[in-house]
Amino acid sequence: MSAEKINEQTRGVYIISPTPFTETGEVDFASTDSLIDFYFETGVTGITILGVLGEAPKLAPTEARAFLEHVMKRVDGRKPIVVGASNPGTDNLVRFAKTAMDLGAAGLMISPQPFLKTDDQVFGYWAEVLTRLGPDVPVCYQDYPQTTNTVSSVSVLHRLIDAFPNFVMLKHEEGSGLPKITRLRERSDKGEGRRVSILVGNGGLYLPQELRRGVDGAMTGFAYPEMLVGVVEKFHAGDVEGAEDLFDIYLPILRHEQQMGFGLAIRKEVLKRRGIIACSDTRHPGPKLTARDHQELTELMERLQRKLHG
Amino acid sequence: MSAEKINEQTRGVYIISPTPFTETGEVDFASTDSLIDFYFETGVTGITILGVLGEAPKLAPTEARAFLEHVMKRVDGRKPIVVGASNPGTDNLVRFAKTAMDLGAAGLMISPQPFLKTDDQVFGYWAEVLTRLGPDVPVCYQDYPQTTNTVSSVSVLHRLIDAFPNFVMLKHEEGSGLPKITRLRERSDKGEGRRVSILVGNGGLYLPQELRRGVDGAMTGFAYPEMLVGVVEKFHAGDVEGAEDLFDIYLPILRHEQQMGFGLAIRKEVLKRRGIIACSDTRHPGPKLTARDHQELTELMERLQRKLHG
Amino acid sequence: MSAEKINEQTRGVYIISPTPFTETGEVDFASTDSLIDFYFETGVTGITILGVLGEAPKLAPTEARAFLEHVMKRVDGRKPIVVGASNPGTDNLVRFAKTAMDLGAAGLMISPQPFLKTDDQVFGYWAEVLTRLGPDVPVCYQDYPQTTNTVSSVSVLHRLIDAFPNFVMLKHEEGSGLPKITRLRERSDKGEGRRVSILVGNGGLYLPQELRRGVDGAMTGFAYPEMLVGVVEKFHAGDVEGAEDLFDIYLPILRHEQQMGFGLAIRKEVLKRRGIIACSDTRHPGPKLTARDHQELTELMERLQRKLHG
Amino acid sequence: MSAEKINEQTRGVYIISPTPFTETGEVDFASTDSLIDFYFETGVTGITILGVLGEAPKLAPTEARAFLEHVMKRVDGRKPIVVGASNPGTDNLVRFAKTAMDLGAAGLMISPQPFLKTDDQVFGYWAEVLTRLGPDVPVCYQDYPQTTNTVSSVSVLHRLIDAFPNFVMLKHEEGSGLPKITRLRERSDKGEGRRVSILVGNGGLYLPQELRRGVDGAMTGFAYPEMLVGVVEKFHAGDVEGAEDLFDIYLPILRHEQQMGFGLAIRKEVLKRRGIIACSDTRHPGPKLTARDHQELTELMERLQRKLHG
Repeated sequence: MSAEKINEQTRGVYIISPTPFTETGEVDFASTDSLIDFYFETGVTGITILGVLGEAPKLAPTEARAFLEHVMKRVDGRKPIVVGASNPGTDNLVRFAKTAMDLGAAGLMISPQPFLKTDDQVFGYWAEVLTRLGPDVPVCYQDYPQTTNTVSSVSVLHRLIDAFPNFVMLKHEEGSGLPKITRLRERSDKGEGRRVSILVGNGGLYLPQELRRGVDGAMTGFAYPEMLVGVVEKFHAGDVEGAEDLFDIYLPILRHEQQMGFGLAIRKEVLKRRGIIACSDTRHPGPKLTARDHQELTELMERLQRKLHG
Repeated sequence: MSAEKINEQTRGVYIISPTPFTETGEVDFASTDSLIDFYFETGVTGITILGVLGEAPKLAPTEARAFLEHVMKRVDGRKPIVVGASNPGTDNLVRFAKTAMDLGAAGLMISPQPFLKTDDQVFGYWAEVLTRLGPDVPVCYQDYPQTTNTVSSVSVLHRLIDAFPNFVMLKHEEGSGLPKITRLRERSDKGEGRRVSILVGNGGLYLPQELRRGVDGAMTGFAYPEMLVGVVEKFHAGDVEGAEDLFDIYLPILRHEQQMGFGLAIRKEVLKRRGIIACSDTRHPGPKLTARDHQELTELMERLQRKLHG
Repeated sequence: MSAEKINEQTRGVYIISPTPFTETGEVDFASTDSLIDFYFETGVTGITILGVLGEAPKLAPTEARAFLEHVMKRVDGRKPIVVGASNPGTDNLVRFAKTAMDLGAAGLMISPQPFLKTDDQVFGYWAEVLTRLGPDVPVCYQDYPQTTNTVSSVSVLHRLIDAFPNFVMLKHEEGSGLPKITRLRERSDKGEGRRVSILVGNGGLYLPQELRRGVDGAMTGFAYPEMLVGVVEKFHAGDVEGAEDLFDIYLPILRHEQQMGFGLAIRKEVLKRRGIIACSDTRHPGPKLTARDHQELTELMERLQRKLHG
Repeated sequence: MSAEKINEQTRGVYIISPTPFTETGEVDFASTDSLIDFYFETGVTGITILGVLGEAPKLAPTEARAFLEHVMKRVDGRKPIVVGASNPGTDNLVRFAKTAMDLGAAGLMISPQPFLKTDDQVFGYWAEVLTRLGPDVPVCYQDYPQTTNTVSSVSVLHRLIDAFPNFVMLKHEEGSGLPKITRLRERSDKGEGRRVSILVGNGGLYLPQELRRGVDGAMTGFAYPEMLVGVVEKFHAGDVEGAEDLFDIYLPILRHEQQMGFGLAIRKEVLKRRGIIACSDTRHPGPKLTARDHQELTELMERLQRKLHG
C-alpha cells in the first residue's frame, strides 16, 4: 500500500526522524518502530527519514537500505514517507532515489551539493538531478545553506520552478530568510509562476512568522512534534494568535535544540527521556552531551512541564 | 570624570549600542543622547559602542572619533563605556585604542581578525595585540566566529588568559558554545588559571542557561535592555526561575532580532518605535526592512505588550 | 597634469604597487619614489596603488591620503594611476574615491564586499556603488574571490556591464577562471554586450593562456614587471610563442610568489634585493620570512639569473 | 602477494590514480589495466587509488569495492597500493579500511572531516579514527585544507605523531605551507619527536622547494608521472639543480592542471590523449572541458613536446 506522493499543495507537518542506534552502535529497529508509532500518535502528516538528522552519510549503504525498507513496511502506506537522497555523486543519488520510490516513498528530500557559488552553478546542478530523476519523482528542495554553504537565490528558485515540474516542495531553512518566503509567494500569487509547497525547517524556530507569510507547514525534527502539529492546525483553523501562544510555550526548549551541531544529541536525548527510543547515541563523528549538558536539559524539560501542566 | 575600568570581576549588563543616523545619513547626535539616557534608565551597568552593531567599519575615522567623544562627554564617567577597536591593521587598532582610553574608556572590545585558522595563529595574533596595548588597557575578547570565521578554542583561551593579564573579559557568542563556558569556569574554579569575566552576546539568546553555567552577565544589543537587566538582577538575587520566566516573555522577539545580518535593521527599528532614536536607517551595505517585515515586527511587538500588560 | 582615464579599450600592464615601510614602520616615501621610477623603467603602462598588496586596510586614513598625494605628485600625469578604493562602508568608499579622482587618478579598483552570496546580492551591491560614484568615474572591478569569498558569475557581470557604463574594466583573478574570459569575450564579440577591458591578476600565473583568450594585459604585482611588460608586448606584436617562452623563464619564481598570504612578503623581499625599496617589512598582521624562506628565495633568484644570463 | 606497507621512511612517488569511466559512465576496467601498466612503466614507487582525483565519493560502494579488488589483483603485490578511505562516518571508514587492508593495501590515505575548527577538534577526530584502525594499519594523513576547510596546525600534527604510531605519513598539500615542512622536519631532526614520511600533493607544484626542505617525495596526480619520478630520483641522487631543470620543463602544464576543480578534467584528458585511458569523462557533478579548453590544452601539450624534443 502506498500513500499519496507529495505535491505543490502538500501541507502539514513532516517530522524529520533521527536514526536510532543501540548502545553497540547498530541501527535499532525496535526503537524505530516505537518512534514511528509515536510520530503517528502526535498527528504528523508524514515522516522524513535519512536526512542530516538521520545521520544518513554515516550509515552503510546496506544499513540505509534496511532502515528504509523497515520503515516503509512498518508504515505500510498509512502516511507519506519522504526519503533523504542527497549524495556527492549524482549516479548514486539517482540509484538510491529509484530504490526509495520503488519501495513506496512519497518523494525525495535533496539538498544541493556544497559550495555551488553562483546562480548558474546552482541551476546547473539541479537541472541534471531533476532531469535524471524524471517527471514522476517529486522532489523537496532542501534549502539549508548553514550546512551546504550553497545559497539558493530567489531568482534561481524561480528559474528551477519554471523549468522542472518535479520540483514540488521547498524545505525552507535559510537562517534569516523570512523575506524569501514572501517573494516566492508573491510571484505565484500573481500568477507569474507555479506555486510550490513550502515547509520550513530550522526546528521550526520561526514557524508562526513563516505561517503568516504563507508557508504550508513544517518539515523539521523538533522532539515535541505535537507542538508543530498543534501550531499548524490552529493556524490553518484560523486561530493565529492561539497558534503562536502554543508555540511560545515550547520556544525555550526549541531554541535550545536548535544549536548547530549540538542539536542532534539534544533531540535524541529528549526522545529517549520521553521513552520513545532506547539510546540517544549518535555515530562518530557526532555530538555528545556532558553531565552538565544533561542537567541543563533536565531544567529545560521540567520548566516545559510546569508551563504545560501548571 | 572616569568610571572604573572593566576587570575580571565585572558583572551586569553592558548594552551594545547602535550608531544612530539621520535620514540624510549623518551621525545623529541628538538620538545618541536620548539613546544613552534610555540605556541609563533601563539600569544597564555600562554601554559598549562602535561594535558590529554600531556599524563601526562604515564610519569615517573622523565620525568614529566624534561619536566617541560625544558619548564620553554625555556619559561623563557616570557609567563605564567599552569601546570597539577591532581593526584589520594592528597599528590602527592600537592608535584608536589609545585615543579611546585617553578619553576615559573603561576598556576595549576587540575581535580577532578573520580567518585565523589554528590555535597558534589565534595566539600569535592576540600576543601582538595584547602586548602592544600594554598591561594597563583592559580588553574584552569578542569571541564571535559567526562574523569572523575565527574559532577560539578553550585551549587557546586558556593560554592567552595565562599569558596576558590585560585579557580580563570574554564576550562569549560562539553559536553553540554552552559547554565552552563550563570548561572555562571549571579551570578557574579549580585554581588552575585566572578567572576572567564572561559576558554573553548573541542578543542573549541563551542567557538563562549561560547564567546557570557561571557567566557574569551580558554584553549584547537587544532592543529591550530592561529584560537583560531584569534577568541578570533576578538571577544574581537568587531568583533563578523568576529570571527565566522574565526571559521567556521576551524570547519570541529576541529570537526574531537575532537573525544574522537582518537583526541590525530590526533592532534599530524597535528603538525607533520605542521613541528613542529618530531614524532606523543603516548605512550601505546594510539590511533594510520591507513593508512585510514592518508588519511582522508590529505583530511581534504587540504580542509582547499583551504578554507584559495582559 | 593628468593622464588619460582607464576605459573599455585599456591594454598593457598596470603594476600593483606595494606600500613600502621603513624599519620603524612608517610609510617610506623615498622608497616609494624609487619604486615608481623602477616601474617606469620597466615600461609598465600604469600603476595601481592601495590594493591588497598595498596593505591599504592597515594604513591610517591620513597615511593613505599622504601616500596617494605623494604618488600623484611624483608621477605628475606621466602615466595613469589606478587607486584601490574598496571599503566596508560605501560612504567611506565614495568619499575616498572622490578624493582620488580629484587628485588625478585614472580610475578606481574596487572589489565587492565579502560574502555576497547570490547574483542578486552581488548586483545590488555594485548597483549602489556604481550609481553613487557616477558616470564619470571609471571603475576596475576586482574579481578576486580567493580573498573576498564573493564569486561573481558571468551572468551578473553581464548584467552589470549592461547597466553601468562606468564599469569599464575587469581585473580577472578568479582561481580557475579561464573559461570565464572566453564567455565574456564571446558575448561582446557577437555584439550582444559592451566590451570591457580585462586585465588579469593572480601574479600573472596564467598570463599567456589568458592573452590567447582575449585579455588586454595584466594588473598584478609580480616583482619582475619587465616580464609582464615583455610578454604582453610580444603577444600584441604577434609573437605568441615568444611571449610564452619569456613567461616560462620566470614561471618558477612567479609560482613561488603566488602563494596566498605568504606572497606579499616574498614580493617585497625581491624588490628589496633588487635595490628598489629599503625594507621589506609588512605591517601586522602580515607574513614574515624565516631564514629558511630567505635561503629558498635566494636559490630561486639565482636560478632565474642563470636562465636569463646563462 | 603483498607489497611492503608504507612506513615512516617511505620515499619516492606514489601516483594518485583517477578512476577511468567508459562513455556510458561505467568503471572502465580495461583502461584501469592500461593505466596501471603505464604508471609502472614510468617508474612510480606505488599507486594511490580512490582519492579525490579518483572521484571516490561518486562511486557506488559496490563499484569502489570492485575497483579496489581489480587493482589489487592486477598489481598483485608488485608495488604498494595506498587506498583512500575518507568517509563522513567513522564506522564506514573503518569497515572499508579493513576491507582494503585485507585485500593487501599498503596503507590508507585519510583526510580529516570538513570544518574541524580547532586543534582540539582535529585531535579528537583523529584520535578516534587512528585508535579504531589500530596499530597495524599505517595511515597517510591527507592535509588538504583547500577541499576540507580543516587546517591542521604543526602543533596538532606533533601531538598526533606523538600519540599514534600508525600515523606514518603526511600528504602535505596545504597551499602556502612550505614553512610547515621545515618545522616538522626540525623537530624530528632534533630528536624531539618521531619522524614521519612526508609526500607532497598539489600536483607537485612546489616539488623542488619541498624536496630541499626535506620531504621524501610526492603523492599526487600529475598526468606526466615520469617527471615526478625523474625529479625525485635526480634529487635523491644529489643532482639538485638537474632535478629542478627537469621540473621547470613541465611546470607550465603542471600549473595548468593544478587549477582547483577544473584540474581533474584536464588530467583525465591528458591521459586519454597519451593513449592510456579510453575516455576522459568525469562523473556528475564534475568538470567538463569546452572546445576552447581543448584547444588550450593542445597548445600546452605541443609546447611541452617542443621543449622535450626540440
